[in-house]
Amino acid sequence: MSAPLPIKLYMHSGAVGGPNPYKVLIVLHHLDIPFTKVATDDSKAEWYVKDINPNGRIPAIEDPNTGLTLWESGAIIEYLVDEYDKGGKISVKNGKGAWEAKQYLHFQMSGQGPYFGQAVWFYRFGDNMPDGKKRYLEQVERVMMVLNNILEGKEYLVDDRLTYADLAFVPWNMVVQKWPLLSDPLWKPYQIEEKYPNFVKWQNKLCALDAVKRSYEP
Amino acid sequence: MSAPLPIKLYMHSGAVGGPNPYKVLIVLHHLDIPFTKVATDDSKAEWYVKDINPNGRIPAIEDPNTGLTLWESGAIIEYLVDEYDKGGKISVKNGKGAWEAKQYLHFQMSGQGPYFGQAVWFYRFGDNMPDGKKRYLEQVERVMMVLNNILEGKEYLVDDRLTYADLAFVPWNMVVQKWPLLSDPLWKPYQIEEKYPNFVKWQNKLCALDAVKRSYEP
Repeated sequence: MSAPLPIKLYMHSGAVGGPNPYKVLIVLHHLDIPFTKVATDDSKAEWYVKDINPNGRIPAIEDPNTGLTLWESGAIIEYLVDEYDKGGKISVKNGKGAWEAKQYLHFQMSGQGPYFGQAVWFYRFGDNMPDGKKRYLEQVERVMMVLNNILEGKEYLVDDRLTYADLAFVPWNMVVQKWPLLSDPLWKPYQIEEKYPNFVKWQNKLCALDAVKRSYEP
Repeated sequence: MSAPLPIKLYMHSGAVGGPNPYKVLIVLHHLDIPFTKVATDDSKAEWYVKDINPNGRIPAIEDPNTGLTLWESGAIIEYLVDEYDKGGKISVKNGKGAWEAKQYLHFQMSGQGPYFGQAVWFYRFGDNMPDGKKRYLEQVERVMMVLNNILEGKEYLVDDRLTYADLAFVPWNMVVQKWPLLSDPLWKPYQIEEKYPNFVKWQNKLCALDAVKRSYEP
């Protein structure tokens, strides 16, 4: 079989940008799928909204091997492992584990991402809205608590081995780790490292993966 | 083949409750899958968090036919159509359309649901946070605009026929339609009916489906 043509990944070009494209980038690196980045610093640009993603957000991909254009990082991850992870390196092909991986991916997409994203927004713009700021810090902590409980006695979310479900959580966790959120006086009392050691250990182990490091290289 | 045993659907028992369980209920009705509701009015109850959903949210299902317990409405919908819609009544089994349906499901889970949910929260509790309230009303409108654009010249999201992707959007759209949001002075200028006719026509057509009506019967 000849090598696949590189997948086009639409994402921001600079060092600063939202975490969602990194979810896709990590999976591309981990599966050694050839790709090229297409600089998309204005995701509301007319060409992009018209031809690539009507939602005006990054990431999106175009796969010249199949002719597919796809947006929403969760769907892109599912597509990449279905098409390019036939050996099941980070995917689960059948049964209970396959559905659990999808469940956690949806939790990442609907629970972790949106709440962490709102926390960042309120951290930046919410000084006049302390109740809003507090709400999202509490939700961030709640998601960390849930993940910590799920990881009790386990190294990974599904079948005790690394899957795409784990990888999908990395970029938003990383934002919260790096963001001054953690030094916010509102946040300190939560004592994440002390209270949620399973969560912290899991995230640190994922961040040590080559694919994650390569995804964040300048 | 003998009839499947009823699926247990964990959701609130009263008339008032969040929209996410209705996404699953509509799919169960539309595919005529036998089910029983398990009243779950306290989704943080110890038994529920321990045995059913560590995230402490509804819906969740248990399928006695396969032994699977699953949470996250998006994953549950994918499971139900995979297992109980072999004929493809509302699912797309292969190719471009299959990935588009997943893409829209993820957009519902990560885009529509969370933003609409925050808008409702700020509508209820955000009188002292006009900037927050405005942010989420604007996001609700933005999602409606995106859907309206996608639906230009189309009756449904994927392959011009009804799929689970359409159905997944119904309950949160319905919340916004029914909620006093629409009579909020902040909201009126958006003129949803005038500006987004594709969106409104689509939602009204979906609401007229038997499966949707039956899902909301007291």
